[in-house]
Amino acid sequence: MAAMDIVLTTIPLPGEAIKYLENHGFQARMVSDMEEETMARAVALLCWCMGDLDLLSMIGKLRGLRAIQTFSAGVDHLPFNAIPPHVAVLSNAGAYSRPVAEFAWSLVLALAKGLNGTTPNRSAYISSPYSKPYLIHGKTLMVFGTRGIGGEAARIGKEGFKMRVIGINRSGAPAPGIDEVHPSTDAPRLAGRADVVIVSLPLTKETRGIIGRDFLSNMKDESILVNVGRGEVIVEEDLYEELKRRPGIRFGTDVWWNYGSGESVMKTKTGLHSLPNVLGTPHIAGGATYSDEVSREVIMSAVTNVVKFLEGRDARNLVNRSEYV
Amino acid sequence: MAAMDIVLTTIPLPGEAIKYLENHGFQARMVSDMEEETMARAVALLCWCMGDLDLLSMIGKLRGLRAIQTFSAGVDHLPFNAIPPHVAVLSNAGAYSRPVAEFAWSLVLALAKGLNGTTPNRSAYISSPYSKPYLIHGKTLMVFGTRGIGGEAARIGKEGFKMRVIGINRSGAPAPGIDEVHPSTDAPRLAGRADVVIVSLPLTKETRGIIGRDFLSNMKDESILVNVGRGEVIVEEDLYEELKRRPGIRFGTDVWWNYGSGESVMKTKTGLHSLPNVLGTPHIAGGATYSDEVSREVIMSAVTNVVKFLEGRDARNLVNRSEYV
Repeated sequence: MAAMDIVLTTIPLPGEAIKYLENHGFQARMVSDMEEETMARAVALLCWCMGDLDLLSMIGKLRGLRAIQTFSAGVDHLPFNAIPPHVAVLSNAGAYSRPVAEFAWSLVLALAKGLNGTTPNRSAYISSPYSKPYLIHGKTLMVFGTRGIGGEAARIGKEGFKMRVIGINRSGAPAPGIDEVHPSTDAPRLAGRADVVIVSLPLTKETRGIIGRDFLSNMKDESILVNVGRGEVIVEEDLYEELKRRPGIRFGTDVWWNYGSGESVMKTKTGLHSLPNVLGTPHIAGGATYSDEVSREVIMSAVTNVVKFLEGRDARNLVNRSEYV
Repeated sequence: MAAMDIVLTTIPLPGEAIKYLENHGFQARMVSDMEEETMARAVALLCWCMGDLDLLSMIGKLRGLRAIQTFSAGVDHLPFNAIPPHVAVLSNAGAYSRPVAEFAWSLVLALAKGLNGTTPNRSAYISSPYSKPYLIHGKTLMVFGTRGIGGEAARIGKEGFKMRVIGINRSGAPAPGIDEVHPSTDAPRLAGRADVVIVSLPLTKETRGIIGRDFLSNMKDESILVNVGRGEVIVEEDLYEELKRRPGIRFGTDVWWNYGSGESVMKTKTGLHSLPNVLGTPHIAGGATYSDEVSREVIMSAVTNVVKFLEGRDARNLVNRSEYV
């Protein structure tokens, strides 16, 4: 029997994934078990490509590599310049839609009801700009990003809370279940219509700093902004100033500007993380590293997608490198 | 022109409500403006009947009174023994469905994602039993109370988060949009199926202490219990013991056991309010006293309902006193 092509992985795959690969003629092997022969036969690499792997030091040895498929939704952390042009990069966008959209909604509702600033003093609770409850039902939701996480966040707003949904994407192309979609250039003009804004954009050259003073200054005095995409999509200094100036604007975020790592990920140079109208969490929305059910979905999504690519079928999330470098 | 029948109110009504009453032949008058003549012509009384009115001292003078209509959803605080039997009592159940169901969901999601115990330490966050994120999508929701608040909470769970919904009510009679309904006597047996339990029951003789050890001990190790009905529906001591014993059960509540009033409403004799798996708010879910939009809906609901009653049409929420005394 001829040796099967190898798909490398940085994390142990569940039996279901190994079986799927075998059924399609591929053998799963851990990067940590790599020998010269393994490397030569590796056609694809599955990785977080963050702490789990030093891609720079090994990429040269993977001479047969055709694709890198990340477990993560974002790929902005990849060393694109070191990856040969003939190696395709595939992200795992979409695999996190449910947990992350659900997490975004937990931030929206917690901020809407002032749960980050609870006090037993009822009159203080309902009169403080930081905790006065906002009603969401029937209001207007704006989503930055209309597929994957953004699409699912829009669906929850529409079906769960009967909101009108404005979608923002690059081209303004319509998206299923979203009432109206506009190109990102129009977002600042439309900001004043939104009661809730959910940002789920990946970080690319184009999205970096896409939400700045022009958008923020047009937001309603009592509105909610939640970011579950990437921190740098919002200009930190502009947001800090707006949150200081208008305490009725509440900001929730699971993603940061990366001035530190580990425990210090939530530190910010402006001190934004300490404002009373900010509710932050340390990049936990995805959940693949602590939830078995999310983990399974994330891994199977990555595995089935890379197999599609290797077989020349319609793979999702083929990354256009020019958006990143 | 003959003098119109008077509808007394303890709070100023918006023009819309005054107009509505006039169109139906009733004159709105504030209780604070009462004279002997006003009292004799009063056929109905609109009140919170809490701090806004000393009902005991005036009920004897309201000789023409046919109905007391509360602005509040619950009527458990009314001095039923002092209200003559021929005076109907009408509650405002249903008028708070949207804000309270939405509030219940803010507690559910905040607890599900550990937002009450955020820490910048990612590994501490995701490994603590008090903050480890739970996924809600597709799980099972149990609602105590299948109309009004319970019905709307069920709808949000089903449409927003694709949950299977088990309803609990007195008779087990089917309810629209709820997958299966069971009588309250079956609840303890079914407790183990629920990932999320939302309680929206009024306090009556029958519902007092309806959730006790037999129900709580059957709940899943990782599950969420939220109360937006009345505190005494749950047996405090039993809940305290279960929350101490099983830290993965998370409890959110807007209603309390009333050992104090004002700022001390959130105090409990067991100390339950200080447990790390508890998230509490001081009875603010309804929102009628701070939100103009809720207030309008609440007042119009009370006014239109009492007019229906006075005109002999189908009024809602006619209170069966035997449930309370």
